[in-house]
Parts: sequence; structure tokens; C-alpha cells
Amino acid sequence: MDAEAYFKIGSHEAKKGEFSRCLLLYSGGLDTSVMLKWIQEQYECQVVALTIDIGQVADNLDEIRQKALTLGAVDAVVYDAKEEFADRLLSEAVKANADYQGGYALGCPLGRVIISEIAVRMADKYQCQVIAHGCTGKGNDQVRFEGYVTTLNPKLKTIAPVREWGMGRDEELAYAAEHGIPVKQKKDSPYSYDENMWSNTAEGGEIEDPCLIPPLDRILLWCKLPDQAPAQPRILEIDFDRGVPTALDGGKMRLCDLIMKLNKIGGEYGVGFFHLIEDRIVGLKVRGIYENPAAAILIAAHKKLEMLVSTREENEFKSLVDQKWAYLTYGAKWFEPTMVHLRAYIDSQNLKVTGKVKVQLHRGTITVVALESANSLFDANLATFNKDASFNQNASPGFIELWNLPQKTAYNATKDVYKQPLHNGK
Amino acid sequence: MDAEAYFKIGSHEAKKGEFSRCLLLYSGGLDTSVMLKWIQEQYECQVVALTIDIGQVADNLDEIRQKALTLGAVDAVVYDAKEEFADRLLSEAVKANADYQGGYALGCPLGRVIISEIAVRMADKYQCQVIAHGCTGKGNDQVRFEGYVTTLNPKLKTIAPVREWGMGRDEELAYAAEHGIPVKQKKDSPYSYDENMWSNTAEGGEIEDPCLIPPLDRILLWCKLPDQAPAQPRILEIDFDRGVPTALDGGKMRLCDLIMKLNKIGGEYGVGFFHLIEDRIVGLKVRGIYENPAAAILIAAHKKLEMLVSTREENEFKSLVDQKWAYLTYGAKWFEPTMVHLRAYIDSQNLKVTGKVKVQLHRGTITVVALESANSLFDANLATFNKDASFNQNASPGFIELWNLPQKTAYNATKDVYKQPLHNGK
Amino acid sequence: MDAEAYFKIGSHEAKKGEFSRCLLLYSGGLDTSVMLKWIQEQYECQVVALTIDIGQVADNLDEIRQKALTLGAVDAVVYDAKEEFADRLLSEAVKANADYQGGYALGCPLGRVIISEIAVRMADKYQCQVIAHGCTGKGNDQVRFEGYVTTLNPKLKTIAPVREWGMGRDEELAYAAEHGIPVKQKKDSPYSYDENMWSNTAEGGEIEDPCLIPPLDRILLWCKLPDQAPAQPRILEIDFDRGVPTALDGGKMRLCDLIMKLNKIGGEYGVGFFHLIEDRIVGLKVRGIYENPAAAILIAAHKKLEMLVSTREENEFKSLVDQKWAYLTYGAKWFEPTMVHLRAYIDSQNLKVTGKVKVQLHRGTITVVALESANSLFDANLATFNKDASFNQNASPGFIELWNLPQKTAYNATKDVYKQPLHNGK
Amino acid sequence: MDAEAYFKIGSHEAKKGEFSRCLLLYSGGLDTSVMLKWIQEQYECQVVALTIDIGQVADNLDEIRQKALTLGAVDAVVYDAKEEFADRLLSEAVKANADYQGGYALGCPLGRVIISEIAVRMADKYQCQVIAHGCTGKGNDQVRFEGYVTTLNPKLKTIAPVREWGMGRDEELAYAAEHGIPVKQKKDSPYSYDENMWSNTAEGGEIEDPCLIPPLDRILLWCKLPDQAPAQPRILEIDFDRGVPTALDGGKMRLCDLIMKLNKIGGEYGVGFFHLIEDRIVGLKVRGIYENPAAAILIAAHKKLEMLVSTREENEFKSLVDQKWAYLTYGAKWFEPTMVHLRAYIDSQNLKVTGKVKVQLHRGTITVVALESANSLFDANLATFNKDASFNQNASPGFIELWNLPQKTAYNATKDVYKQPLHNGK
Repeated sequence: MDAEAYFKIGSHEAKKGEFSRCLLLYSGGLDTSVMLKWIQEQYECQVVALTIDIGQVADNLDEIRQKALTLGAVDAVVYDAKEEFADRLLSEAVKANADYQGGYALGCPLGRVIISEIAVRMADKYQCQVIAHGCTGKGNDQVRFEGYVTTLNPKLKTIAPVREWGMGRDEELAYAAEHGIPVKQKKDSPYSYDENMWSNTAEGGEIEDPCLIPPLDRILLWCKLPDQAPAQPRILEIDFDRGVPTALDGGKMRLCDLIMKLNKIGGEYGVGFFHLIEDRIVGLKVRGIYENPAAAILIAAHKKLEMLVSTREENEFKSLVDQKWAYLTYGAKWFEPTMVHLRAYIDSQNLKVTGKVKVQLHRGTITVVALESANSLFDANLATFNKDASFNQNASPGFIELWNLPQKTAYNATKDVYKQPLHNGK
Repeated sequence: MDAEAYFKIGSHEAKKGEFSRCLLLYSGGLDTSVMLKWIQEQYECQVVALTIDIGQVADNLDEIRQKALTLGAVDAVVYDAKEEFADRLLSEAVKANADYQGGYALGCPLGRVIISEIAVRMADKYQCQVIAHGCTGKGNDQVRFEGYVTTLNPKLKTIAPVREWGMGRDEELAYAAEHGIPVKQKKDSPYSYDENMWSNTAEGGEIEDPCLIPPLDRILLWCKLPDQAPAQPRILEIDFDRGVPTALDGGKMRLCDLIMKLNKIGGEYGVGFFHLIEDRIVGLKVRGIYENPAAAILIAAHKKLEMLVSTREENEFKSLVDQKWAYLTYGAKWFEPTMVHLRAYIDSQNLKVTGKVKVQLHRGTITVVALESANSLFDANLATFNKDASFNQNASPGFIELWNLPQKTAYNATKDVYKQPLHNGK
Repeated sequence: MDAEAYFKIGSHEAKKGEFSRCLLLYSGGLDTSVMLKWIQEQYECQVVALTIDIGQVADNLDEIRQKALTLGAVDAVVYDAKEEFADRLLSEAVKANADYQGGYALGCPLGRVIISEIAVRMADKYQCQVIAHGCTGKGNDQVRFEGYVTTLNPKLKTIAPVREWGMGRDEELAYAAEHGIPVKQKKDSPYSYDENMWSNTAEGGEIEDPCLIPPLDRILLWCKLPDQAPAQPRILEIDFDRGVPTALDGGKMRLCDLIMKLNKIGGEYGVGFFHLIEDRIVGLKVRGIYENPAAAILIAAHKKLEMLVSTREENEFKSLVDQKWAYLTYGAKWFEPTMVHLRAYIDSQNLKVTGKVKVQLHRGTITVVALESANSLFDANLATFNKDASFNQNASPGFIELWNLPQKTAYNATKDVYKQPLHNGK
Repeated sequence: MDAEAYFKIGSHEAKKGEFSRCLLLYSGGLDTSVMLKWIQEQYECQVVALTIDIGQVADNLDEIRQKALTLGAVDAVVYDAKEEFADRLLSEAVKANADYQGGYALGCPLGRVIISEIAVRMADKYQCQVIAHGCTGKGNDQVRFEGYVTTLNPKLKTIAPVREWGMGRDEELAYAAEHGIPVKQKKDSPYSYDENMWSNTAEGGEIEDPCLIPPLDRILLWCKLPDQAPAQPRILEIDFDRGVPTALDGGKMRLCDLIMKLNKIGGEYGVGFFHLIEDRIVGLKVRGIYENPAAAILIAAHKKLEMLVSTREENEFKSLVDQKWAYLTYGAKWFEPTMVHLRAYIDSQNLKVTGKVKVQLHRGTITVVALESANSLFDANLATFNKDASFNQNASPGFIELWNLPQKTAYNATKDVYKQPLHNGK
């Protein structure tokens, strides 16, 4: 077998002649525009273009729709999923304090879920037997799209032209030129972006290699750098109802509007961008630059409020639940039944996460400065340093004695076994 | 029983007449100065004062020693444990990415471990049968001191005068005046501090109640606010050898020196302070303001380097190990044997955490901008977007099919049971 | 302080004169009978005796009630909680595969929950300000009763006469003789028992010390030894509906009846007894002999059925959830909010645990031999060795390549760091 | 692509012409005997047969070697790895209380590790560029062999003839007849076995489908049924040194001898066989019947001894570590670096697991009846019911008050949120 050749071995991969109409997840960019033509040529089938609006600010959706039709799509659908995306998926992300490997609020993995769901519905509506996506063969998103589509409707098949066609960037540009496909992207930017209201991801160029310092001023699209941010801090007040943000500075808002507004404010204050060297599902490491100001603010606020109304035991176990949620969400397992149960756990805890959080933004920093909740476990009478508070100090020594008993017994029973009891192994 | 009265019910609590000499953990402040006198009076015993230097910058140790002698201590020992503290405990904290409930690097709990160890050694050297500490009856530190002391030497007993004496601040001041004890602290600051090289903790006043916004400009001792920090970012290069920081900007340093230097630099750049509503061991919630710039910088750097040389599986499980380490360390369980095994785990993973990390400080933000390691798992050939890389795209669909198989099978087998498969329970 | 003396330092401990009427958890045995008198004498108060039927087979409840009245109780209540205990608590234990430290289905900790709940209700009904229990000062049950009672109604106080009175067995017998309290228990049995429908616990004598072999023939009350069990195996068929057992051999039954029936059958077949050296909440280790045939059978059956309808991911995480559930249940934390969320998780997974399980009992062994469920994830087409099955073997090598990629990369990147890559550290 | 056709898409899969000599993992059975011929024919290469003795009792290794040479192997190596297998891998399995999904001691996954290691060494010694195995395309073992071989030596490639050749059992028999390959196996047994000293696995026939009751009397090879076992129990005494079994009934033995002896004894007493519906790596469920008497006895004994010398905290966390160890070992991740750290943890805890365990075997049951260890945490003075013991009962109420404080605070703060605080959601 030729190293260059592509063999369709996945039983979910559609082959030429097996289908007459394909739904293409169409972004309007170079890859999917080339694809729109290429699929028609290669598979001799009709193509329906589907573009889903989940808050990607860079796009002009009307133009995209028009472009798809120009390139031969039999239909071109633009679907506004902003509200659904926020209400169903992002509210859950807040409740789960979404964080993959240190700060990534999982914008891209969450976006793939709703896109897959809608694509499966639209494939049915437009009588497509196959869904095509623009992902490469070494990333996470192929795993998500193909996994989710075939899970939600096992009769659907998929095609992944980028895996098949063997074209590099130059060949794609040549193909575009040859087929009259308009190309907007500047050839000289090494960065590629993926955007929705929950995050903007930049990859490529110096970002890729962890040894290099990425030039943020040329990379960031949403966020100012801390020094360009206002000198004065700004305090936001966010209301939560059972774990879900419902108002900003006293004004009730749809969650999607609140998120898009916080992206603007947060970007202005330079908060919520970061570097992440992430472990991909397919076994690779890669670095990306992520901008998610709204997510960063909302999760910071939510986490503190949740901790305020929860016990030490709850707070310890919730971390574990949240981490499993994040690894599964990242890992293309949104419909894995474990997620259903994690959700039940998370929702149960969030029933009491109701209150107001004051968050201060200042030059790239997010600080939760004050919290109020009817369910707060802070008890001023117990906690205060005042002498006449209700905490019973007489209970302490008995507590200490029994709390410490196993440690004391074990340490003294086995200290000869562990010759260096005070040391960390050196 | 009178609610005000104190009964010694802990079997580790020393009673009057049972001992002739007491070792007092002496800070030189109001509480322990009053205590120094009070113990002599109340227990009719000798007192040896022990002051341990673990990098608390606010103290003049010679003055403290002199004051102890003036107040009647039969001996007053100042012990420099800075190097030991850093080498043995803080190196471990870095390797464990020390973080209790969101950013607290556990300065106070770690300090209590080394103080207890040294106190036990000194009690033996100075023939004290009892160790006295200045902690209140509703905090964590009484649990740590009494637990650790009796674990390390079950023959030792402890006394906790603050629990016993029933004096409030005003009574203490009166007692001091009466007994000629010099008082330095200004009566009007509502904040109390606990300091060592790994953190400075502020409590009391508006800090206590989560509803209030603490006035940081009056609280912080180590850190500037972001806006007072330099406009230009600074990039630090930190070397790690098997998880332990060994050099700053190319200059090898003792760990304790590196930490104290980073506290200065970090404080200048306004990084590493935060609010924490923590769950105390004794079952209370309380808010504190923490400043730990060196810890914040070193742990940020370490964590990223560790993730770079570790697999997804390692990174997921390490979070769990680190969290357990943090909860036990906070929870007065440093000598619990579980810690020995967690350490073995942590040390094993850290064997490969060797390399250089570039960390940028800027107006309150810490960003790891570049990393190098001979053990890096980033493989440019595999990860790059370049067409001719070594990743086998043909492997992807087979992977996807089987990776997804359980999800697809389970989803379709039980979707009728879970009527709202796409929803998070609403 | 005298080592023998008892000081009431718990703020939940009632003192003489503070109350006029006490509810006593009355079993009819020596301890609580002596207590019934002693409380009247000592506290100069009225006593209401409460005896709760949760399936303890050894007791004659009418006699117990009569005895209480004879001993001066102003009222003696017998409360049948068998159905409630099974429906509300034991159904949950089955769903959580209740197992503390290797086979203990938590009969005693679960019994303490329902007793506390009912006691709190009855204390209200009979206008008692205080609840008295018969537990010692070094066991788990004092923690459970006092914790649960004061959690459910913080206004209630408790007394624990056994902690207070300083009587040993001989002094109790003397007190009983003196006060005309009838004593049934034979003085020469070293074992003490605690019984409800979910387990029978034996403690004391040779059981206590792990070095000794307990003479089971003299200890067991419910179970035959394997060799006295029938030579022929018996196969039971148990129906589960959403995790809860509903029928035995085709006959629908109340859960409490099913459990009591299975105790008889299981005892006859010699299954479900075991030795456990358990870690008590108060920091001690102690060995007990447990008999819980019904629990052992139902949990074995449930666990296998649950695994059949769950994915690998679900099965791995459920173990963790179940273990946390068991440690909290044992640890007197039934009303800790973490339990609410664990329950939500457990209930979510159990929604699909519906089906029939065939369990074979034979000479002390329990074997799940066959299972059926509409939600089974076993797919004969996929799993079979037959050549023409639907599993796509072509997918395997791609899966293997990427599944293995991180291991291969990491192993080869760091094998020099871990000099003995094939060894387990020796 | 034809559904029947096989495409080599794994980059580790060797293709015809790329190599001249192949190492075949040769068992002497039908599959690998046919394979020995088929590889020579199909790939026009030499074959070296490697048979590794890890305690599979059913095999005559001399005959197997002779058969390989008869079938054209250029060399046929029999390698005795019994001692290495036990000392290096099975000692670790004991320390990790090896248990995958309920009783499976991981005999097959562990065997695959050592076979892969030795195969890689032998491939080097005999100058083979390729290793061939006899596994199917839907099982775990292909993942293990191909993963481990390419991890240990990324230059080696593999072939998996069963995936490639498309022969069913009948075609294989025809091929054997045609090529003069002697066939021993009776055609009418539906069961296939995989055996080494740590377990015997049976699959196929009624075993496969969970709805059917497998006829154990026709399936089991090592174990008697409980009723055929001796009427009298037998008590074994097993010595452990740092977690590893070293002696049986006082006689020191090599671990491999001890295991093989315990298999005989345990088999005679009918212990250690069970049904398991396991979750395969490739996403399928399948049932197997496992016999592992020695493993079951040793792990039962080890687990109890480990718990005796460990605290509650250690015992809770060890379960989690052991489970991760088991899932990774099963999951073809033996060389995943996480395993190195889990091993460090496990070894650390096992440093104190030294002592003697008495285990009673009786009619299919294994009971640990007594334990002794110098590191025991059982403290008779603390635990006993005797009145004069050293446990301080006065400490209990203070402990209870603070242990319960978070539960009480949280329950009362949020009970209105959780409307049914006493219920499990119904």
C-alpha cells in the first residue's frame, strides 16, 4: 500500500456510488469551499451546504450562504443555534466549571456537539445519506463529528475529504483557482482559527511548537493585551440561578446574549486568553492559543459561588466529577451514558448555586471579590474571631485527638518501615 | 458545665503539675508574649521560647529572642529552618502543584509541619515535656500542631492557652499592660497575618465575610496591585531538575533563595494574591486573602512542564493525586501514610520533569510562554499541519470506529430509557 | 481531671435540669434496660421508650414494650419501619452495590439512619427534648446517632449514658439486680450482636483480635456453614426494575419481604457471612463477623446486571461513586449533601438496570449464572467468534495504532529516565 | 472496498516483500500451526517459532517445538519464563490486588506483557524484522501484542494472519488437511481456552451469551465444582514479605512454584472460578469463564493483610489506585508511564505488607480467618470493649460535634432546596 493513498476502512465511511446527496458542514472558508466543489466532482452527488451560527463573530453568514449556492450547492442552509447552544450546552459547561487541562473551557468540543446534532436533523430533513466535514485526519474534530453523527443516527455515513484528497495548502489554492472558487484568506498568515461564542482557538505557526513564544499581538482576535486594557478596574455583578448565569449588573439577559456581551467586555479588559499544550484524543500533543473571556469570567464566578454553598466533602468530589466531565467532553464522548449520570450529579449540586457574584476585571486579571447566596455555608457566628461566637472551642481537643488517632497509630506502628518519615523520598 | 469554662478532655492536653518545663512556639507578637508570662504564672513551670525562621519577612528575630528572655523565658532559641523548609517541604509542594480549593499553595499548613518537627526535636534537646502553641480553638492550626506533635512523639503533651484563658483582645492588652509586656501592634488594624516564605495570609475584618469586598490596598503586604506594577512585562526563565526549581534566569540558586527572590519580583509585578473561602478542618468556612507570588509562579511553571512530558492518562490521574495530596496536607495529615505513597507517585512522575520554562509576568498575570525539555512528548513530526508529517491519517477512521463503538451501542440501546438524550436534565 | 470522670463538653449533650422528658432508643437488652431506670434516677426526668422494628428477628417486640413500661417508661412505642427501611434505604443500598471495605453491605450504618429519622419524629410527637442512645464511647454508632439527630433537628440534644456512667458489665448486672431489672442474656457468651434485616453483626470475644480464628459455629445466628448447606445448588431468579429488586422466582414481593425471605434461603445455603477488620470513624480498627445473605445475593445480582447494561467507562466510574457512597454512609454522613448528588448519579445509571438475573446458591457460594435485560449492551453480532459477524476487523489496526501512540511516544521519549522500564521497581 | 477484504492500514503492519524473517508466537494449536505454514507461503519468508512457557499446564512443550520444525520453522524456540513471569509481573498483580470488573486477576493481559517482552528480545536475537501473532481482529490481545511490540521496539512490525486470511474454522481445517498439518483438537468442543499459571480462560459456545447458563462441568479444566470438593475445610498459612507471597504452610517457595501449587490445591477445593461479562478494549462486551484459584487465594489474603496494616484513608485511596492499575493493565497500557507511578505508589504501601495470613478453603469458598503482622494497626488496648482500655471516651463528643458540623450546617442551610432530604430521589 502506498503511504500516500487513502483507504476507506471505517464502516461509517461512505463510498462513491452509495449515496446521491451529501450534507456538507460549510464554513465558507478555503477548505470547505474547495470541498463543496470536490465532493460534487469526486462523488458525483448533490451537496447541501449547512452553516450553523453558534456565535462565530468573524463570519458574514449571508455571504457564506450565497457562496455555497454559487459553488453549486443544491441548497444552502444557515441555522441560528446561538440560543440553543447557550441554553443547553454552555449552561452545562458553567455548572461543570468546564476546564480541560488548565483553563480551556471546551469551546470547540462543545460546538461540535451541537453542530453534529443539528447536522443529523438537517440530513434527515434534506434527505442526505451522508455528512461531510472539513476536519483533518490528525485532529480531534474528525473523532467528534464521525462519532456523534453515527451515534445519533447509525444509518448515516460520513466523508472526510481532507483525509482523502491528499492536497496541501498550495494544491488547494491551485484547485480553487482552477475551479473559480473565491479565496479570501491571506496566504501569509500562518494561523488558523476556530470560533464560536464560547471560545476562539488559534493554531499553527509558532503556536504549535512549545519552545517558541507566540506573538500574541498578532494572534489574538478577541482580547486586548493587559497593557492595552483600561487602567481602572471594572466590577461586574453576575446573578446565578441554580448554577446558570441569568443577569449582568442587574439586567436579566438570555444566556447567549450575556456570553456575547461578556466576550466584548472581557476582551476589552484583556482577560481569558491562554496557552494550552493539550493532549489530543488521537494521541498527539499540540499547543493552541485560546481566547474565552466570557467563559473564564462565568466559570470563575460560578466556581466560587458553588464552593460557598458546598461543603468540603462536596468541593473535593466535585473536582473529580468536573474533571471526568471535561475529559469525556473533550474526548468525543458527549453521548456516552456516563455523561448522563455526571450531569445528574452536577445538576443536583447546582440546585443550590443561586446568588450574586461580584467579579473584578483588571488588566488581564479576573478576581471574584464578593458573593451572596441564601444558601451560603459561611456562618458569621461560627467563623468569627470574636470571643462570644457560637463555635464550641471545648469540642476541639476531642476532635483533634480522634481525627489524629489513625495517623498517630500508623506513624508509630510503621515508622521503622519508612525509615525517612519526615522526607519526601530523598 | 458553664459554656465559658474550658475542660481539658484531650488525653494529650497537659495539666498543671504534670510538667516542669514547657516549650513555647514564640512569634514575638501579642498573643505569644502574653502567653509566655501566663504559662509561667498559671502552670508554675519554666518556659523555653522557640522561634523558627521559615522566611517570615516581617520579623526581627534578634529582637524577638531578646523579648522572650525579658519576659522570663529560661531559654530563647531562634532556629533558621529556611533551607530545610524549602528543600524538604516546598520542593514537594512544587512537585504536587500545591493547590487547595483554587490557588492556595498551602503555605500555612506546610509551615506547621516543619515547625512541629523542629519543636519536637527542641523539646527533647531542652527537656520540655510539653509544647505550647498560640492557636485559637476554632482554627486549623491547633489541629496541626497538636496532631503532629503527638504523632511525632506520643509522650509529649500540649497546651493551647488561647483555648483555655478566655481572654479577648482587650483582656489580653490589659494583661500585657499589667505585666509589663511591650505591645507593638497597632490596635486599629483589624487584620491578622501569618507569614512564611511560601505565603502570607491575612484574615479578619472585612476579609472574613464573603459579602464584603476586601480593601486590598490596605491588606496586601507583599504584592502591588496590578496597576502599580510595571507597564512592561518581564520574562523569567526557570530551570527544573526532576520537578524541583534550580535556577532563575540561568543562575543556579538554593531553592529558599530562589523562592524569596521570586516573592520580591512577583510582588513587584502584582502576581500571586487571591481571595479564598476555604473549608477548615473543623468544619467552618472562612475567607482569607493570600499572597504567594513565588509559589504561584513556580507552580504555574512546573505544572506546564509536567504536562508537556506526561501523557493524557498521566495528566488526568495526576490531578487526582495532587488534589488528595492538597486535602491531606491542609487537613493536618502530613504523616498519614497515604502521604508517603502519594509522594512516591509524585516523585516517580517528576523524575522526568526536567527542563526550562519561560514565564511572563505582567500586571498581575502569570503566563507560561515557552517550554523546553529533553523529555517533551511534543513531536513536531506528528503534530504539525504539514502534509508530509509522520502521522498516519489512515489509522484515524478505524480508531474512530472502535473508540466510538461503546458510545454508539449504549446510546442506541438505551436512548428510550433516557428520554432526553441531548439535554442536561431540563 | 480524673481519667475516669466524664465531662459533657459537646454542645449537643443535654445536662441534668435542662429537660423534663427523654426519648430512649430501647432494644430491651441489658444496656438499655439499665439505662431506662438510670436516666429516670440520674436526670430526674420522664422516659419514653422507642423500639423500632427494622427486621431484627431475635426480638419479641411486645415483650420489649411491656418491659419498658414495667421499668417506668411513661410511654413505650413500637414502630414498624420494615417497609420504609427497605423501600427508602435498602433499595438505595442495592443500587449503590453497598460494600464497605470488602463485603459489608452497611446494615448497621443504614439502620442508624432510619432509627435517627424516626426518633426525631417521635421526639417531636412525644414532646421529648432529648434523645438517649445506648452506644459506647468508642464506636461508630454514637457518631451516627448524635450526628443525625442534631442534624435533623438542631434543637434536640442527646445523652449517651454508657459514656457517662462508667459501669462495666459486672456493675451493670449489679445495678440490674438492685433495681429489679430482668436479665435474659447469658453471662457466658462473649459475643454481642446488632441485627436488622440487612445484616447481623457479631462482635467481641475472639472476633475482636485478628490473630485468632473465630469459632463460626458458635457465632453465626443466621447462616449455616457451607458443609451443613444442601448438596444440591439452587437457582433463584430475581427481577430488577430500575435497580430495585421486585420479584423472586417470578413472584412480585414487597422489598422488605423479599429481603427477609432471601435471608432465610441464603442462610440455609450458607452464603453471605464474612470476617471484616473495619476502620471505624473514630480511628480504631476492629474485626466483626457479619451475616448478610440477602444483601450479598441482591448486590451480586444487581452489580452484574448493572455492568451488563453499562459501558466500560460507566463501570469504571461507578466503582468510584459507589465507594464514596459507602465511605460516607459508614462515616455518619448520610445527610451530607454530597450524598444527595451521589444518589442522583446512582439513580441515573440505575434507570436502565431492569431485567432478570439468575443466581445460583451452592454451599456458601453465590454465582450469577445468567442475565437478561432489554438494555443489555451485549451484542451477539458484534461479539461472536463467527466469521460473518458485524464487527469490522479492518478498523482494528488503525485503532491499535492511535490507542497505542501516547504509550509508544512516552515510553521511547523517557525510557532512559526510567532505567528499568520493564520492572516494578525492584 | 469489499467488506471481506483486508487492508493493511496500520503503519506497524508489515507487508509482503518488506521482510525476510518473521517470529511467530507459536502455541502448537490449530490457528498458529496453520499460520506457520501460511506465513511462509503468503509472505515468502522464513519463520522462527517461539513458544513461551508461563505455566500453561495443558501443553507438551517438546512436542510443540518438534511440530514447529516439522511445519518448516527455520528455528523453534521454547523459552521458560515461569520464574520471570511470577517474580516480575505476578508479584505486582498481588500487590495491586489485581481485579478487573469483579474477580478477574488479569491472567491473560499479564501474560501478554511478558510474551511481548520476550518476543521483542528474541526477534532481535534471531534477526526477525516482524512478529506474527495468532489473535483475531476483534479481541484484546491484538491490541496488546501490536501495542507492546511496537512500543518496546518501534522498528519492529507485526502481522496478524487471522485478521488477514478470512478463513473460518472449517477453512482452517481444510487448509490443515491440505498442508499435512496434524490437528489434535476435537472439532466438537465449542470452547476455546487460554492458559497460563495465573488463569485459565474459557470462551465460546454458551459462555458467550449472558442469557445462557454455562455448563461448568464441561467447561472447567482446573477447578472441581464445590460439591466435588472435600467436605473438610483446609487452612493454608501464607507468608507475605513486602506484599509478595514467600511461603506456604511454613515452607519457603519460589513464587512460581507457590502459585502452581496453589492452583492445584485451590482447584481441588473448588475455589477461584467465576463468570465475567467483560468490557473489551475494542468496545465489545463478552462473557468468559475464568479459573484462577491461586490468584484468588493470594489476592484475598494480600488484600486483608494490606488493610490490616493500612489506615482508613490508605484503604480508600488504594482501591482507586488498584482499579486504575487494573484498567490500564487490561487496556494494553502496561508501558504507559502512569503505570510506573502507580507501581511506585503500590510498592510504597506494600513495604509494610509483611506477615502471616491464614486462609480457609472450603467447598468453593475462600475465607481469610486470621492475620498476624508486626505492622498491624489493630491495637487491642484501643479497640477492646473492656472498660479500662486506653481509648479516651471523653474525646468522642467533641469529635462528633466537629465531625458533624459541616453536615449539620449544610443540611439546615439547604434543606428547602432539596425538598426531600430523607429520600433517594423518589
